[in-house]
Amino acid sequence: MKATRWHGDGDIRVDDIAEPTILDDRDAIVRVTLAGICGTDLHLLNAGSALGLPEGMRIGHEFVGVVESVGRDVRGIRPGDRVVSPFAFCDNSCFFCEHDLHCNCEHGGIFGFAPMWKPEHGPEIQGCQSEFVRVPFADGTLVPIIESLAAPEHDAKVLALSDVFSTGFHGVIGADVGPGDTVVVIGDGAVGISAVQSAVAKGAAAVIHVGHHDDRLRIGVDGGATHSVNDATDGAGLDEVVRSLTSGRGADAVVDTISTDGTLNQAIGLVRSGGRLAFVGLGFAFKPPGGDIYQSAFWRNVSLHGGLAPSRAYIEQLMPMVEQGRIDPSVVFTHTLPLAQAPRGYDMMNGRVPGAVKVALTMN
Amino acid sequence: MKATRWHGDGDIRVDDIAEPTILDDRDAIVRVTLAGICGTDLHLLNAGSALGLPEGMRIGHEFVGVVESVGRDVRGIRPGDRVVSPFAFCDNSCFFCEHDLHCNCEHGGIFGFAPMWKPEHGPEIQGCQSEFVRVPFADGTLVPIIESLAAPEHDAKVLALSDVFSTGFHGVIGADVGPGDTVVVIGDGAVGISAVQSAVAKGAAAVIHVGHHDDRLRIGVDGGATHSVNDATDGAGLDEVVRSLTSGRGADAVVDTISTDGTLNQAIGLVRSGGRLAFVGLGFAFKPPGGDIYQSAFWRNVSLHGGLAPSRAYIEQLMPMVEQGRIDPSVVFTHTLPLAQAPRGYDMMNGRVPGAVKVALTMN
Repeated sequence: MKATRWHGDGDIRVDDIAEPTILDDRDAIVRVTLAGICGTDLHLLNAGSALGLPEGMRIGHEFVGVVESVGRDVRGIRPGDRVVSPFAFCDNSCFFCEHDLHCNCEHGGIFGFAPMWKPEHGPEIQGCQSEFVRVPFADGTLVPIIESLAAPEHDAKVLALSDVFSTGFHGVIGADVGPGDTVVVIGDGAVGISAVQSAVAKGAAAVIHVGHHDDRLRIGVDGGATHSVNDATDGAGLDEVVRSLTSGRGADAVVDTISTDGTLNQAIGLVRSGGRLAFVGLGFAFKPPGGDIYQSAFWRNVSLHGGLAPSRAYIEQLMPMVEQGRIDPSVVFTHTLPLAQAPRGYDMMNGRVPGAVKVALTMN
Repeated sequence: MKATRWHGDGDIRVDDIAEPTILDDRDAIVRVTLAGICGTDLHLLNAGSALGLPEGMRIGHEFVGVVESVGRDVRGIRPGDRVVSPFAFCDNSCFFCEHDLHCNCEHGGIFGFAPMWKPEHGPEIQGCQSEFVRVPFADGTLVPIIESLAAPEHDAKVLALSDVFSTGFHGVIGADVGPGDTVVVIGDGAVGISAVQSAVAKGAAAVIHVGHHDDRLRIGVDGGATHSVNDATDGAGLDEVVRSLTSGRGADAVVDTISTDGTLNQAIGLVRSGGRLAFVGLGFAFKPPGGDIYQSAFWRNVSLHGGLAPSRAYIEQLMPMVEQGRIDPSVVFTHTLPLAQAPRGYDMMNGRVPGAVKVALTMN
């Protein structure tokens, strides 16, 4: 079968490899119908050597598909089921899963991501930008797609729940966004766009979307952002908008979907005393924030919530909202390519194609 | 009258100065009956020049006393009332005060602390280690002491609510401690001891108190700590205790009352995924924490709450608990001295007298 594999920084290839087989009685094999390329995959592609990725590591952690076969101990999932997977597999029964923290499952790991892979997960890292994928703990991991969405034409909407929309939603949950709040969403990538829709769904009165690309900010406005500011061209405007909406106090909540030192400092400058700041980007891993944020947080009683999204928990909450049309997670997929052209998809997302927010991969 | 004043790093004196007068119709003058020396005062004494303190700045922000006189617009407080003050004055009517964030009052400031003092607060910084103190926004700031505690013999219990106990309590609130939780309290100073009592009052199932002084840890045990670890002598023991109480997961909540880079990293190592970490010490101001904490917080979904305590809000909650004997905030005052000996009190707290946790100052 075809599968994307990482061969070194900047070197992603579609290789011919053996189809996966069931290694554990709790496994399932899923035939992938649509897979996503995530911003995290771009980080892996561009800088994987610093994370110690093994050459030939499979990549991809966002997928929907059809169950092909299941191990002997799998009870809730059957061949033929259309399923969506969270980016992290999980047993859905440990302490953390029971606390809706499936991404922190005691026995879990992330698809296509060696640093989270343990020996008990099997000899080969399973990435999902591939025709088939082995899913550990199939009963715990996979979520059957509800009937009205269980058709190929809805794949893109459901696929985005596996990571990117759940991550935006997690930022909104982490920042405790509620009715009437004034919320700033920093970042106009797919997670930022998803956070805008999530904040609107949670009843925010004003959602100020901040980014660097007018075309992406338009997708945010379509998703309900009441204001958008391109702070590459209008840096001072942002502060003005937030202050004018809040009698000078600052935003009740800020969701930082970038999370570098720069954006976290921007975020803490925009949030009001006693407000909530969620950071759901991975930028801090590349440019660690300094101690100033603790100072500001302390004196102004700002709570910080950083977090990997427990998308296994959110998928079940969000799927009915997709069905009802309250959210449309598919808007982030600006392009769809066949798997064979995956390297081009990475290139597009690396910024060589203007307007490419996120790429979905079909298997034919 | 006598008052402590800062004259440079390491130089605190009891000076003869003019009694304060009412400068604004909302002021009150309070005759202080008992004042505290706070850990923050020690920081000011030792390193105030780095904060730009003016020479001759009055010092002290914890006091109880009797109202001597009030301005024309003061309605709720009358001469003769016994009152306790939060460390920060506040109007008790702005957005932040209405949200129980009195320490972040739009018009407030901190007694005896120049960096938080604005021109509209009057020409002279008011510190409360003095016979009299001018209180801005008397109606907003001062809390009448409930009748059964309104006598000199209860002053020490009520005095501790003005800052140190409220700060320990704020850590427990920030870390969202609830019934059944396993909680670690880092620090055996007065705030740590207060946090232990607060966690017990909130129904924690296990409270592990961590410090460097056996005598102080004993006060924690008297206050309900189920375990205590002197990690100066038994560093590995702490991790073992926490893991064994939580099936290896880590504590549900950690209250870090020191908050240096070292203790914050210790804290994040002890908290479970999805747990809550509150930092209520000022250590980060002296040794800023690094980016590793964001990494851990993100991957493990730990929420961080740093905060100055809104003690004005807490005093009213805590006073009935003092009355009922559920908490005894006075245990932190290991020594009481007359105001004239204040410099000796600072010396004792600076560690030159073993066993001196906190010093109270009487006015005669």
